[in-house]
Amino acid sequence: MALAYDGAIQRLIDAFSRLPGIGPKGAQRIAFHLLSAPESEAQELADAVMEVKSKVRFCEICGNVCETSPCPVCVDPRRDRGVICVVEEPKDVMSIERTREFRGLYHVLGGAINPMANVGPEDLSIAGLLERLKGDEVKEVILALNPNIEGEATTTYLSRLLSPLAIRVTRLASGLPVGSDLEYADEITLGRALAGRRDA
Amino acid sequence: MALAYDGAIQRLIDAFSRLPGIGPKGAQRIAFHLLSAPESEAQELADAVMEVKSKVRFCEICGNVCETSPCPVCVDPRRDRGVICVVEEPKDVMSIERTREFRGLYHVLGGAINPMANVGPEDLSIAGLLERLKGDEVKEVILALNPNIEGEATTTYLSRLLSPLAIRVTRLASGLPVGSDLEYADEITLGRALAGRRDA
Repeated sequence: MALAYDGAIQRLIDAFSRLPGIGPKGAQRIAFHLLSAPESEAQELADAVMEVKSKVRFCEICGNVCETSPCPVCVDPRRDRGVICVVEEPKDVMSIERTREFRGLYHVLGGAINPMANVGPEDLSIAGLLERLKGDEVKEVILALNPNIEGEATTTYLSRLLSPLAIRVTRLASGLPVGSDLEYADEITLGRALAGRRDA
Repeated sequence: MALAYDGAIQRLIDAFSRLPGIGPKGAQRIAFHLLSAPESEAQELADAVMEVKSKVRFCEICGNVCETSPCPVCVDPRRDRGVICVVEEPKDVMSIERTREFRGLYHVLGGAINPMANVGPEDLSIAGLLERLKGDEVKEVILALNPNIEGEATTTYLSRLLSPLAIRVTRLASGLPVGSDLEYADEITLGRALAGRRDA
C-alpha cells in the first residue's frame, strides 16, 4: 500500500486541500465524512458547486454577484439612489447589508490597489464607478474598503480622484470595535478612536 | 435584498457549512473562491465528490476503505499475516502506514465503544475480528485505538475478550510525544511515560 489513499479518496482529499482555509488534515476529515454521509448530501454538494458556476454572474451596474443582472439591489425602487457605497468584494456587500443601516446602492471594485500583487487602479472597476457618478443623482460616495494597507491606499486614491466632483466623499469610521477592551486595542486603532472622538 | 445571498451562492455556502470543520465564514470564503476559480477546478471538485461515493467501498476482510475488495493490504503477499493491528477508523490505517514501522494486516472496527453516543461493542466490527483470529495464523493483535476515554474502554473490552485465545495482545505505548517539552506534558501523559520507562 502506498502512503497515499486509493485513487478516488486521494483525489477528493486533493480537491478539498486546494480550497482556501482547508489543510490536508481537514480535507481528509471531510473526505471521510462524505464517504459515510448519505448519497444525497454528496449529490447536493456536487450540484451546488456546479450550479454556482453556471448560474451566478456579476451585476452589469454594481459588479456584485447575482443570478439576474442588474442585481436585485440595483433595480430595487426602495433603495436610495443618492448614495453609493464602494466596497472591495461581493462579500463586503453582504456584511454591510447585515448591519441594516444602509439603504443606498453599492459598487464592487473587485479588489484593492496592491502593488505587491500587481493590482493597480486599472484592474479595478473604477471606470464603471465614474460612469455612475455622471449626472447629479448621486450625492454621496461612501468608501467602505478594508482598513488595511491596500484598502487605505485605494481609499486615498479614490478620494483624490473624486474630489473634483460635486459629491460628498466619506469613509467608514475607525475606532474601537464594540464589545472590545481598551486594554487589548492596538495603538493605531486606539489612536484613531481618540482622533475621531465625538461628544458623548 | 435579503440578508442571505442569492439562491445558488447561498446553497453552496450551506452545503460547505455542513461539512466538518467548516464554519459559515469559511464556507463563504470557499464559495467565493470557487466562483472566481476556473470552471475546471469546480468540475474536478464536484466529480471527486461523486466519484468517491460511487467507487469507494469497504474491504470485506479488514473494513478499510478501498476501490477493490479485498483491499491491497489484505491481498499483499509481502505483508506479515501473523500480526493484526486493530484501529478505529480507516484514516488510522493511513497514519500507521506513514510510520513505515508496521508490515502486518489491519482490522478497522468502525469506531470505539461510546455509551454517550449509543455505540456499543455490537456496533463495531468485532465479530469479523474474532472470525479472522480462528486458526493459528495470527500470533499477535495490536490494539491501536485512540488514547482517549472511548479508545481506552474499547482497548480494555477487546483485551479481555481476546485473553482466552492463545494470541499475544498488545497496545501502543503511551508517553511523551517526540519533540515535545516535559514542561508542557499533562500529568497523565507524564505519569504514563514514567510507568512505561525503559532502559536507556
